[in-house]
Amino acid sequence: MSTDTHLSSAPAAATDSAAVPARGPVTSASYSITVRLNANGDPASIGRIATAVGSAGGAVTAIDVVESRSDGLTVDVTCSAADAGHSEEVVEALRAVEGVTVRKVSDRTFLLHLGGKIEVASKVPLRTRDDLSMAYTPGVARVCLALADHPEDVRRLTIKGNTVAVVTDGSAVLGLGDIGPGAAMPVMEGKAALFKRFADIDAWPICLDTQDVDEIVRTVELIAPGFGGINLEDISAPRCFEIEARLREKLDIPVFHDDQHGTAIVALAALKNALRVVDKKLAEVRIVVAGGGAAGTAIVSLLVEAGAGQVLVWDREGILSPDDDRLSGAKLELAQRTNPACRRGDLTEALVGADVFIGVSAGNVLPIEAVAGMAEGAIVFPMANPTPEIDPTRAAQYAAVVASGRSDLPNQINNVLAFPGVFRGLLDARAKEIRPGMLLAAADALAAVVRDDQLNANYIIPSVFDSAATEAVAHAVAESARAIPEATADVSEDGTLPL
Amino acid sequence: MSTDTHLSSAPAAATDSAAVPARGPVTSASYSITVRLNANGDPASIGRIATAVGSAGGAVTAIDVVESRSDGLTVDVTCSAADAGHSEEVVEALRAVEGVTVRKVSDRTFLLHLGGKIEVASKVPLRTRDDLSMAYTPGVARVCLALADHPEDVRRLTIKGNTVAVVTDGSAVLGLGDIGPGAAMPVMEGKAALFKRFADIDAWPICLDTQDVDEIVRTVELIAPGFGGINLEDISAPRCFEIEARLREKLDIPVFHDDQHGTAIVALAALKNALRVVDKKLAEVRIVVAGGGAAGTAIVSLLVEAGAGQVLVWDREGILSPDDDRLSGAKLELAQRTNPACRRGDLTEALVGADVFIGVSAGNVLPIEAVAGMAEGAIVFPMANPTPEIDPTRAAQYAAVVASGRSDLPNQINNVLAFPGVFRGLLDARAKEIRPGMLLAAADALAAVVRDDQLNANYIIPSVFDSAATEAVAHAVAESARAIPEATADVSEDGTLPL
Repeated sequence: MSTDTHLSSAPAAATDSAAVPARGPVTSASYSITVRLNANGDPASIGRIATAVGSAGGAVTAIDVVESRSDGLTVDVTCSAADAGHSEEVVEALRAVEGVTVRKVSDRTFLLHLGGKIEVASKVPLRTRDDLSMAYTPGVARVCLALADHPEDVRRLTIKGNTVAVVTDGSAVLGLGDIGPGAAMPVMEGKAALFKRFADIDAWPICLDTQDVDEIVRTVELIAPGFGGINLEDISAPRCFEIEARLREKLDIPVFHDDQHGTAIVALAALKNALRVVDKKLAEVRIVVAGGGAAGTAIVSLLVEAGAGQVLVWDREGILSPDDDRLSGAKLELAQRTNPACRRGDLTEALVGADVFIGVSAGNVLPIEAVAGMAEGAIVFPMANPTPEIDPTRAAQYAAVVASGRSDLPNQINNVLAFPGVFRGLLDARAKEIRPGMLLAAADALAAVVRDDQLNANYIIPSVFDSAATEAVAHAVAESARAIPEATADVSEDGTLPL
Repeated sequence: MSTDTHLSSAPAAATDSAAVPARGPVTSASYSITVRLNANGDPASIGRIATAVGSAGGAVTAIDVVESRSDGLTVDVTCSAADAGHSEEVVEALRAVEGVTVRKVSDRTFLLHLGGKIEVASKVPLRTRDDLSMAYTPGVARVCLALADHPEDVRRLTIKGNTVAVVTDGSAVLGLGDIGPGAAMPVMEGKAALFKRFADIDAWPICLDTQDVDEIVRTVELIAPGFGGINLEDISAPRCFEIEARLREKLDIPVFHDDQHGTAIVALAALKNALRVVDKKLAEVRIVVAGGGAAGTAIVSLLVEAGAGQVLVWDREGILSPDDDRLSGAKLELAQRTNPACRRGDLTEALVGADVFIGVSAGNVLPIEAVAGMAEGAIVFPMANPTPEIDPTRAAQYAAVVASGRSDLPNQINNVLAFPGVFRGLLDARAKEIRPGMLLAAADALAAVVRDDQLNANYIIPSVFDSAATEAVAHAVAESARAIPEATADVSEDGTLPL
């Protein structure tokens, strides 16, 4: 999942970071370190170690005595810090402890990545010659011949039926920008691991050494025979739009750009439930989407598809307007679809009296005064990663419902709630394509996972670990696909294969 | 693994099938079927079922009573047949049994392929938010940034270090010919499963929807960032030569065409041991290679590299000779390298007084008289699949040592003895390329797995299930690669990463 980075040099006037109140560091397992140190024999030394970590703002997770000798102990201290600088401070605090020598600092996140995060497993036994003769030669030849005669059975008799290619060019990885295909691998492997964990889908990373649209399209087209779906990932706008559109035209398997449609599904589901909380209707509310990149464009499209009446898009140029001659291409089209009246203005002006703010733009672009100027019962989703458009806890001063990408606050908008279920449903239905109705069905199903008796301003969207979310989305997408015969692949008649 | 099919219309004069003695069907697990049938209450009916299968030449593997009712039994009979026609005969025999009704016939090889043969597994836990924050966002971002700064660490911190792409265009699959990328999937999946089973390598099938050399080269180049090696598979000659050569030029990971080099390694290892059995020297023997396609060309190259003195190549044109104006391209080059004296003749003439026959051509092209005309202590490897150049048991009438691709006879020449170990060694050494010395080292190591006290005419090559084979090959290839610093990738200095 990428963050739109086109706003990274947002106007200084729009930022508000100075007004964010200071607070203690929020530690995270993602900045967890293990420090191996020698301590002298003093029984109090362990206590001093823990105290040192705590006084530096770190959180001790574990203290393991690795070795006890007559002259002292070797100890592994595992603790969480807030960020890289903070973990340095924690280590310095340990170095300062009397009788303690720091030997080695290991970063648990890096250790976890050693050797990569996914692997291939054989689903068939290969212990005996008989096993080999069925899974490989000579037995496999009969299966190949059957598939040559009945191509429609490739989805049944090969991994194609459960496989997704996670394709990137490394041009817009997370909020990190254009780091290239090799450095993008950890994200794509993580995505593949999530596909398996949440939907039992076999996904494989394909990191492309080109950013040329024609080459990307052609390469994906050429590798498509072995995959049942294509998940585009972290490809920068506006190239991602053309790549997706052209691939959808060419391929007979569904093509889904998660940064666009995954985000849009989860945002729409959360918005539907937020509207239930404040008792407003999607067709009647005024919505402002901040960010006209990949995610923003998809959110606008899905909102309109879902029946939203009024949507304005704001980006670094201000409210996107068809008469703004600085706009071109995708942004101009977005302006034409959303702002026929050619409204102009900054974000604060856009939000005066608005009911909903959905941000997929850049950190700290939303002033608290703009939230204060929204309508009664305002809904604010500052979703930019890693820094939201406004600190969600500040937005809650004026907004009735707040959701963000932050995992340490309620209402986390996380694509993991959508993409595994979407592809599970597509694969189950042998879908050849994906249509807007399937995305809407996914959003409706995800929203409906939160029952009326559970719904409140702090619970508008399920937890990522709620397995009901993926199941509901998968079921809805599969049903929606099966309802359109031309969108799903044929299977051979019963009896064609000796199964 | 492919069989050269360019000889499929070999001259009728060279075939000898009429002379093959009749024998009972050899049943194989790869033609194993499970027949579900209803039997009446007669206690003798199970016995009649087994008898019927046996009298039709089938071999009963299992009889399972699925259900017992007052009026009879439901029984699953699993049995092996010799081929598809034979399994029909077995079913007919069961239909003829009194008191038995056949309900359904299932083919175990097809059942095994349902849903495909490999899957993806996560190597990291994804149970808690902390797990997610390290394997995915936000923690993964730090790993990506480190890799952007230190690309040499991609092999350590991603799956690249243990991953191979199994790439085909489906143009020469097994002996089946050009069946296309979708129908080739079962072979590529099987190959990936073998990579895992024999060398713990994570291989993924990439089946390309093009047979254009430029497009294949470019596509593999573009997907290479995520892989530590490329295994080309079942790509027809002569395109495979150009594809391999161009990819080796462009990529910084090893590129290996198994149909060529895997076959050559195992054949050379077997030949070295066969020569030990008959006490002859590679530099002194006269060798005839039948088949100037992918495998034959690679075998000739490796034989020459290993010090073979005299090698002639025979193909459908006769002995390949530089003055034969029907030859072009790869075959002409092969003729120039092997036959400067411009010898001409058919296969029988080529073999008069020869010491070694290595066949990678087509079924039944080698007359028994040609074997009779070879030198004392002749070595004959009829390796064409699925039908050898001569029935190996017939060749043994005159030859001192015989090896073939047949798994039901001694001395099976099987690529599984080479490719897993070759890639294990290449990956372990972080090899950027593959060189002839590494292939030679692999063949030497594989030959040496057979100790002097084990060596005899019926045991010149280890079993595919002898784990010592892969280990020996891997070790030899890694050592050979490490001895060439420019052939292996750098790793970052100790301490660059917080590991």
